[in-house]
Amino acid sequence: MTTTQDNPRLPIHAATGTELTAKSWQTEAPLRMLMNNLDPENAERPEDLVVYGGTGKAARSWEAYDALVRTLRDLEDDETMLVQSGKPVGVFKTNKWAPRVLIANSNLVGDWANWEEFRRLEELGLTMYGQMTAGSWIYIGTQGILQGTFETFAAVADKRFNGTLAGTITLTAGLGGMGGAQPLAVTMNDGVAICVDVDQSRITRRIEHRYLDVQADDLDHALELAVAARDERRGLSIGLLGNAAEIFPRLLEMKAPIDVVTDQTSAHDPLSYLPVGVAFEEWHEAAERDPAGFTKDAQASMAAHVRAMVEFQDAGAEVFDYGNSIRDEARKGGYDRAFEFPGFVPAYIRPLFCEGKGPFRWAALSGDPADIAATDKAILELFPDNERLHKWIGMAQERVHYQGLPARICWLGYGERHLAGLKFNEMVKNGELKAPIVIGRDHLDCGSVASPYRETEAMLDGSDAIADWPLLNAMTATASGATWVSLHHGGGVGMGRSIHSGQVCVADGTELAAAKIESVLTNDPGMGVIRHVDAGYDRAAEIAAERGVRIPMQEG
Amino acid sequence: MTTTQDNPRLPIHAATGTELTAKSWQTEAPLRMLMNNLDPENAERPEDLVVYGGTGKAARSWEAYDALVRTLRDLEDDETMLVQSGKPVGVFKTNKWAPRVLIANSNLVGDWANWEEFRRLEELGLTMYGQMTAGSWIYIGTQGILQGTFETFAAVADKRFNGTLAGTITLTAGLGGMGGAQPLAVTMNDGVAICVDVDQSRITRRIEHRYLDVQADDLDHALELAVAARDERRGLSIGLLGNAAEIFPRLLEMKAPIDVVTDQTSAHDPLSYLPVGVAFEEWHEAAERDPAGFTKDAQASMAAHVRAMVEFQDAGAEVFDYGNSIRDEARKGGYDRAFEFPGFVPAYIRPLFCEGKGPFRWAALSGDPADIAATDKAILELFPDNERLHKWIGMAQERVHYQGLPARICWLGYGERHLAGLKFNEMVKNGELKAPIVIGRDHLDCGSVASPYRETEAMLDGSDAIADWPLLNAMTATASGATWVSLHHGGGVGMGRSIHSGQVCVADGTELAAAKIESVLTNDPGMGVIRHVDAGYDRAAEIAAERGVRIPMQEG
Ligand SMILES: NC(=O)c1ccc[n+]([C@@H]2O[C@H](COP(=O)([O-])OP(=O)(O)OC[C@H]3O[C@@H](n4cnc5c(N)ncnc54)[C@H](O)[C@@H]3O)[C@@H](O)[C@H]2O)c1
Ligand SMILES: NC(=O)c1ccc[n+]([C@@H]2O[C@H](COP(=O)([O-])OP(=O)(O)OC[C@H]3O[C@@H](n4cnc5c(N)ncnc54)[C@H](O)[C@@H]3O)[C@@H](O)[C@H]2O)c1
Repeated sequence: MTTTQDNPRLPIHAATGTELTAKSWQTEAPLRMLMNNLDPENAERPEDLVVYGGTGKAARSWEAYDALVRTLRDLEDDETMLVQSGKPVGVFKTNKWAPRVLIANSNLVGDWANWEEFRRLEELGLTMYGQMTAGSWIYIGTQGILQGTFETFAAVADKRFNGTLAGTITLTAGLGGMGGAQPLAVTMNDGVAICVDVDQSRITRRIEHRYLDVQADDLDHALELAVAARDERRGLSIGLLGNAAEIFPRLLEMKAPIDVVTDQTSAHDPLSYLPVGVAFEEWHEAAERDPAGFTKDAQASMAAHVRAMVEFQDAGAEVFDYGNSIRDEARKGGYDRAFEFPGFVPAYIRPLFCEGKGPFRWAALSGDPADIAATDKAILELFPDNERLHKWIGMAQERVHYQGLPARICWLGYGERHLAGLKFNEMVKNGELKAPIVIGRDHLDCGSVASPYRETEAMLDGSDAIADWPLLNAMTATASGATWVSLHHGGGVGMGRSIHSGQVCVADGTELAAAKIESVLTNDPGMGVIRHVDAGYDRAAEIAAERGVRIPMQEG
Repeated sequence: MTTTQDNPRLPIHAATGTELTAKSWQTEAPLRMLMNNLDPENAERPEDLVVYGGTGKAARSWEAYDALVRTLRDLEDDETMLVQSGKPVGVFKTNKWAPRVLIANSNLVGDWANWEEFRRLEELGLTMYGQMTAGSWIYIGTQGILQGTFETFAAVADKRFNGTLAGTITLTAGLGGMGGAQPLAVTMNDGVAICVDVDQSRITRRIEHRYLDVQADDLDHALELAVAARDERRGLSIGLLGNAAEIFPRLLEMKAPIDVVTDQTSAHDPLSYLPVGVAFEEWHEAAERDPAGFTKDAQASMAAHVRAMVEFQDAGAEVFDYGNSIRDEARKGGYDRAFEFPGFVPAYIRPLFCEGKGPFRWAALSGDPADIAATDKAILELFPDNERLHKWIGMAQERVHYQGLPARICWLGYGERHLAGLKFNEMVKNGELKAPIVIGRDHLDCGSVASPYRETEAMLDGSDAIADWPLLNAMTATASGATWVSLHHGGGVGMGRSIHSGQVCVADGTELAAAKIESVLTNDPGMGVIRHVDAGYDRAAEIAAERGVRIPMQEG
C-alpha cells in the first residue's frame, strides 16, 4: 500500500482550462476524467487508486496509471487504446469514428465468476475491481447518488401520492455513504423523513453537510416533529439514534402514520448490520470474534426489521427494498414473507427505463462552474415543460457542492439525450462554453445492465439473467462513435451477479462530434426502449411507436 | 418441431451469382452467410435451425429467421441490426464505418450461467445456443475441423519429429463427427494412424468418405499394417473395431511402438462413452435405464483408458487431451495421474496463438468454385515460403468437397491476414473474382476466447478465467470496421465455461472495404499477440517486437 507521502503523483487533479496536455480534446477528455476520478475530492482512497464502492478502482496499479497517462498524452485521433482491468494492454490504429479508449474490467468466465477466484487473480496482479463509474472514468461524486435517490422518491410520489411527498412521512434506516442521501432526497420531494441509524457520528455528519435537518431526542419526539411538519405539508428530515430492528417494530405497534418505508443499512454484508443485543461499541470486536454467530444474529434482527416492513405494507404503506439485499438476509434469518415487497427498480425505476430514461450526466473540462451554469440554463430552455427536471436543476444548483471538475446529472430519456448533447456541442463551437464537455452516464441505465437482483429483477418475461443486452449495448456505443466505452462485471452487486456497460462522448464543437453525439445519444437510450419492448412492457412499446424506434419482429 | 415437409422455407440455399437480393454487398453478405449456414449441406438439422455442435443454431425461431432476412434485405449501409440470441431486436442508424450486424448469443450473468437456467430461458423462447460459428453465420462445413486437426498434428510433428509424422505411429480413438478428421489429418502429415472405435458404422462411413484408408481385422493385423507403412515412411490410416479402454492397455502391454497418443471419443458426456462390459447393442438402453450407474462404469473405463495414455507418456510417447474432458472424467473415475498429460492448446496451439495465428477462412459469395481456386492461387503467391500452407492448400484442393458456398480455411498470423484480405479485395475490384468474398474466422482464435478448459487452459500467468479479452476483441472488431461482430457464451465447452467473439469482413472491392479490412485483419490477430505478451509468452513478445505491435506497459 502506497501512502500519500511517498507517492509523488499525489494529490492528483485533472488539468483545467483550455490548454491541451494531450493531442486533441478527444484524448484530453479521458485523460482529465481519469485524473478527476482520482482527485481527493472524488476518490475515497486515492493513495490506493480507489474511487468509491469499497474497492472500485480507476487503474490497476501506479505503473498502469503512468502508462495510461503516457499513452493518452500521445494518442492520435485515429488510434485506440485497449484497457484490460485498469491496465493499458495495446494501442491499435483504427479510424476517426472509432472510440479512443475501449475498456473491459473485472470480467470472468461464468464458472469462475466468484469473489474467491477474483481475489486470487487480483493478488496475482491480473485484474482489478472496476465498480461502475470508477474504472470507466465517469464518476462525479455524491451528486449521482443524490439525484438517483431523489428520482426514486419522486417516482414513489408519482405512483402513490399525486407527484409529491408533501403530507407524507417516510421511514428508513441507514445514514451512510449511500443512505445519507435519503433525507435530502425526501425533503427535495417536500416530504418528511424519519431516518434511523445506530451510529451517532453518521447522524452528526449528515446534519453538518446539510443532508439531514434535525436530530430527534427519542422516538416520541421524532414522531411529534414528523406529524407537525407533515400536517403543514412542509419538508423535514429527522435523524433518530437507534436500531432499526427495534425502532421499526415499535413504530408499527404504535400504529405510527407512516406512508413510505425503505432501508439502506449495509444489509448486503451481515457483518455491517448491527444486531439487537450487541452494543454499538462492541460491534466490530463481536463481528471479528465470531463471524458465523454474528451473521446469525444479524439475520435474526433483519428478520424482525423486514417483518415490520412487510406489516407496514399490510397496513397500507408503500414499501420497497433499496438494493441492499435485506430481503434475502431476512429470509435466511427465518422470515418467509420477506420477498413480499418489491425491489426499487421493478417498483419505480423500470417505467423510466421503458422511456429510455437514465442517469445522464456531463462534466465541464474547463473546470469552470460557469460552464455548468450555462449548460443548466440550456437544459432548462430545451425542456421547458419538464417540471421534475426544473425542480432538480434548481435544487442541485442550490445544494450540490462540486467535487473535482464541475458536473451535472439529470435523467433524460430517448429522444431527449441527443438534443442536450447537440446543444452542448453547439455551445462549445460558438464559444458559449470555455472548453469541451464530456457526456456520459452511470452503468445503471435503461439498456446497459443485466443484474437479476437489481436492474433486471423480476422482468415481465423472466429474462432477468440474459446478458446479451449489455454486450450489445457496448458494441452499439462503439459502433455509434462514443469516445470511450466500457464493459464491466460485478459493479454494485458483486461478482457473478451483473454485467454492465458504459459510454462517454466528447462535445468538442466539431461537426464530427455532433454526428457521433447524435448517434450515440440516440442509440444508447434506444437500447433501453428495445430491451423493454422485447420483455413485453407496454410503456416501452408506446414510446417505440411514438418516437419511431424500429422493432424488426413487429415489421413485415 | 417443424419438418421439412410443412416448412415452405426449406431447403434453404444462399443466393449465388452477382445479382443482389439486398441493398449492397455489405448486407447481401450476412444474408447469404446466414442462409449458407442453414443449407442442408452444412446444417445438421436445418428443419430445427441447427447448424452443428449439438444444438448450435443460426436463428432462434422461424419467425426470427424471417425477420432477419426481411431486415437484411432492406438494411442501408449506415444502419446496424442488433441480434439478441438469434432474434433481431433493433435497427439503429449508425455510420458507414459501423458493422451492419451486431450479435450477442447465449450470454448469461455469471451466477446463472448454467445449463438449467439456459434451458429454462430457452423454453421460454428467450435465448438460443449459438455455438461458435452457427449463430455468427460463418460455418463452412467440416473443412474447418479437418484443417484444425491437420494443424494440430503438424504442430505435434514440429515439436517432436522434425516437422513430419513420416515414420511415426499415432494411436487414437473416436471416429465421430469431429474425431473422424483425425486419420486424414495424420496421413496429410505423412504419418500412420491406428483409430479405435466401438461403432462399425463409423469406421465404414469414414472409409467411404476417404477420411480413413483401411480397416484392420484385429489388433495384431492393425499393428502389422502400421509398422509396415511406418517403415516405408508412408502415410496410412487404419480403423480398428474395439473399445479403447481395452485396446489401449493391451497395446501398452504388448510394448507396441506408438509415438503419439490422443483421443476423441465423446468423453465430455459420460453417457456417450461405451464402458467395458456393456455390449455395443445395449449401449443406449443401458444408459437410459441407469444413467448414474452407467456414468460410474464409463468413468471407470475412462480411468483405464487414460492410465494407458499416461503410461505411454511414461514410455516416451507424445500424449495430449484433444478437448473432450477425458482427463477430468478419468479423475472422477478414481485415476489420480489423469492430468499428467496436457491439453492440445497449451501443448501445440498456443505457440501459434502467440504469432496471432488462427483459423482464418473465406467464402465466395458468387458460389463459383473458380473464385476459390483463384484465391488459393493468390494465397500461394502471397506466401511463397510458407510450406505448411502450400501443403494444406494442395491437399484441400484435392480432398475437400465444398458444402454450400465454396470456402477455404487456412491458419494465418499477425501481419499476414490483412495481406490476404487486401489482395482478395483487389481481385474483386479488378474483376478477377466474380463477386465479393467474405473473410472471417472461428471463435477459437488467438485473442478472442476465454475458456479455461480449452483455449486458455494453463496460461503462463494463471489468467485462464479472465474474460476481459474476448470482450475487448469484440469491441475492437466493431471499432475497426468489421461487417458483422458476435459475442457468444458456451461454444464447444458449454455453459459457464467460455466467452468468445467473432468477426467477418466483406471484400467488395471498394476503397472503404480495403481500409476496414486492413484495420480489422491487423487488430484482430493483434489481440492474440498482446494477450500472450501480457501473459508472459516470449514468442509473443518477439513477434510484437519484430512486427511492431505496441505494448504500452513496456514503453516510456
Ligand atoms: N440503491 C442502490 O442503487 C444502491 C447502490 C449502491 C449500494 N446500495 C446498498 O445500500 C446499502 C447502504 O450503502 P451505504 O454506502 O450507505 O453503506 P454504509 O455502510 O456507508 O452505511 C450503512 C449504515 O447503516 C447503519 N446501520 C447498520 N446496522 C444498523 C441497524 N441495525 N439499525 C440502524 N442502522 C444500522 C450503519 O451505522 C451505517 O451508518 C448497502 O447495502 C449497499 O450495497 C444500494
Ligand atoms: N478439439 C476440439 O477443438 C474439439 C472441438 C469440439 C468437440 N471436441 C470434443 O471431441 C469429442 C468428439 O467429438 P465428436 O463430434 O467426434 O463426437 P461423436 O459423438 O460424433 O463421436 C464419438 C465417437 O466415439 C466412439 N466411442 C465412444 N466410446 C468409445 C470407446 N469406449 N472406445 C472407442 N470408441 C468409443 C463413438 O462410437 C463415436 O464414434 C467430444 O467430446 C467433443 O466435445 C473437441
